[in-house]
Amino acid sequence: MAGTTDAAPVTAADVVAAQAAIGDVTRHTPVLPSATLSERCGGDVLLKAESLQRAGSFKIRGALSKLHALGDGCARGVVCGSAGNHAQALALAAQARGVPCEVFMPDGAPIAKIEATAALGARVVIGGATVDDCLVAAHARTEETGMAFVHPFDDPDVVAGQGTLGLELLTDLPELATIVVPVGGGGLASGVAIAVKSARPDVRVIGVQVETVASFPASLKAGRPVAVSAGLTIADGIAVKRPGELTLGLIDRWVDDMVVVGEDVVADAMVLLMEKAKLVVEGAGAVGVAALLGGQVVPAQTGTTCVILSGGNVDAGLLATIARRHETEAGRRMVLLTRVPDRPGALAKLLESVAVAGANIVEVSHLREGIGLHVRETGVQLTIETRSREHAAAVVDAVRDAGYGVSRYPDAN
Amino acid sequence: MAGTTDAAPVTAADVVAAQAAIGDVTRHTPVLPSATLSERCGGDVLLKAESLQRAGSFKIRGALSKLHALGDGCARGVVCGSAGNHAQALALAAQARGVPCEVFMPDGAPIAKIEATAALGARVVIGGATVDDCLVAAHARTEETGMAFVHPFDDPDVVAGQGTLGLELLTDLPELATIVVPVGGGGLASGVAIAVKSARPDVRVIGVQVETVASFPASLKAGRPVAVSAGLTIADGIAVKRPGELTLGLIDRWVDDMVVVGEDVVADAMVLLMEKAKLVVEGAGAVGVAALLGGQVVPAQTGTTCVILSGGNVDAGLLATIARRHETEAGRRMVLLTRVPDRPGALAKLLESVAVAGANIVEVSHLREGIGLHVRETGVQLTIETRSREHAAAVVDAVRDAGYGVSRYPDAN
Repeated sequence: MAGTTDAAPVTAADVVAAQAAIGDVTRHTPVLPSATLSERCGGDVLLKAESLQRAGSFKIRGALSKLHALGDGCARGVVCGSAGNHAQALALAAQARGVPCEVFMPDGAPIAKIEATAALGARVVIGGATVDDCLVAAHARTEETGMAFVHPFDDPDVVAGQGTLGLELLTDLPELATIVVPVGGGGLASGVAIAVKSARPDVRVIGVQVETVASFPASLKAGRPVAVSAGLTIADGIAVKRPGELTLGLIDRWVDDMVVVGEDVVADAMVLLMEKAKLVVEGAGAVGVAALLGGQVVPAQTGTTCVILSGGNVDAGLLATIARRHETEAGRRMVLLTRVPDRPGALAKLLESVAVAGANIVEVSHLREGIGLHVRETGVQLTIETRSREHAAAVVDAVRDAGYGVSRYPDAN
Repeated sequence: MAGTTDAAPVTAADVVAAQAAIGDVTRHTPVLPSATLSERCGGDVLLKAESLQRAGSFKIRGALSKLHALGDGCARGVVCGSAGNHAQALALAAQARGVPCEVFMPDGAPIAKIEATAALGARVVIGGATVDDCLVAAHARTEETGMAFVHPFDDPDVVAGQGTLGLELLTDLPELATIVVPVGGGGLASGVAIAVKSARPDVRVIGVQVETVASFPASLKAGRPVAVSAGLTIADGIAVKRPGELTLGLIDRWVDDMVVVGEDVVADAMVLLMEKAKLVVEGAGAVGVAALLGGQVVPAQTGTTCVILSGGNVDAGLLATIARRHETEAGRRMVLLTRVPDRPGALAKLLESVAVAGANIVEVSHLREGIGLHVRETGVQLTIETRSREHAAAVVDAVRDAGYGVSRYPDAN
């Protein structure tokens, strides 16, 4: 991407200064080797587990940095509009510095996020139906009260704070060759790129967006922030429709490449991180791993590739949904539709054929209409837990051998 | 517990020697503060994230230590019988040292565990229906081939290896006051207690078992290993029916207290670790947190309490199940049973009343028999996702206000 000759709005020195100001509260998060990704994708792949950061994401770095820069300017308190990680981060930062904090959240925000933010001492205000409404309400509140508005990304002090993550990589990874970093508003990616490439210009920094809300490619091409329409995404933490003025310029100047990944592979990445790396990572935090799985990013052949897992704030319900989806894809769940005579013992005999094949029945339901049954015959749908695709096929064979016609979903045989 | 005057079978010096022999392969796992547990239970609570260890549990420490002690004695290879973490650990240790490895697994073992073990270069052999059958087969194989049998816990070299985790705690936690450690066979608990209490006799070490397979309390009382009957447990990694001869003596001598937790609170602990600590921890690894939640262990009032999360090897399917269970307990899932007239638009009107109340319908099913319906009336069961208990109650009110009688499960109102 093109360099510019503007006076630098954020420098490596700013990041070092931010580090000194925030290091008493932030955690130096661990870097964990990933044998699975190293083998599957080739190269030496490491995971920066920023999901283990306080308040569950990198955002605490920028929030604390901004509070430090504000100094007496935040004596009356700080305000933001957010349904996500920025809200919890600002609340924790304000609590750590003894500053009042108000967070405007949309009225459909998950109760867990509202409670987590309130538990960190912030006053949570329902600010309208959308995050945009909340931003308007938050700005109005700053004018009314003299409290300071804290932007989630488009602010040099916030960018410098996020960049402190890059300093940790410089310390921990002397062999660093490539960094893969999630991009929403662009604060983390630009901060990390500034911190790392100022010291090590040879390191490649690759940003990753999710296709549902990929605002940077168009904006970089246009040379100005362009809004995209935002779809529902599993990576809601990076669902930013319009890059910042500041961050667009910084990304253009410092980040080497920007790639885009699909929704499904983000879900795959989340499951892989749970099963193999034993880490709970939110969708937005897993897009870097998704880019490796999808082949949009190829690990460095010399030196290490570090994938930043930027956050871990995800509902248990969503984890359950993606884990179940994965079970099906891995051949560990299937649905069979068959029919049995409508008489005592008929269902028991069907279930016995499944039991003998060593599979566990999770759910049985009956269909009595709409599928062309004979009189005195019932449709039976079984949801079955199996050990593998091969085992699933063997279970189907066993049921057929017991004399039952079978339709199977997913339609694998 | 009573001290003994026997010659020490495992000493702190043995643990230090093991550390020198295994540290090139094992990971020094991070200790993470837990604000949630510190606030909820009182005291300063830290989590030793051994779930992030290579092969997903502490077992690699003991396996490598044993291989080192065997020296030329394992030139022909090593054998074990296991369906769990010991299998993967021995496979990885053997791979790291260039030693052949055979693992006997029961024929119902999850395919994921078989594949993970095979991926680490071990030859996996189906050794029978149960782990006991596999142990018999593994012993027979050692006699046939001259390969070395590696016991999962009842071996001084294995105990010394597990103790290296304790050395990391001594290094990382100068304020250490209490350690909470899962107990299955007792190898980890005794090794850690020996390592830590030899240097810091003031530190309390508390072992935790799960009620379904709590073999130590009876055995400690009897003064010899007593087998208990084993139920199905979510903490399968510590489902050891009979303590070892060696480890029973060591636990008696070194561990201060042994407590027992229930199954449900282990599931709660796993969800808390996912939601708050962003860590995937298996049931056996979460019993220490369960003991804090259940009140069996009270954190130290001076100094830090370190809870060892001993492993993270758990199927995505089980994670999905416990996450769903948690959603229900937290008021984020409910089931409503109502009845609608059997005519066009009636179901749509019912669903509209739920939509207006801001809740998401996950599943609709019909009941046409067995619930005393009028003619031309259908029973409808809705599974609904809500934001909180309060929201769930509001949804019930909204459906009632729309003119529908409602029964609710769980029966909260």
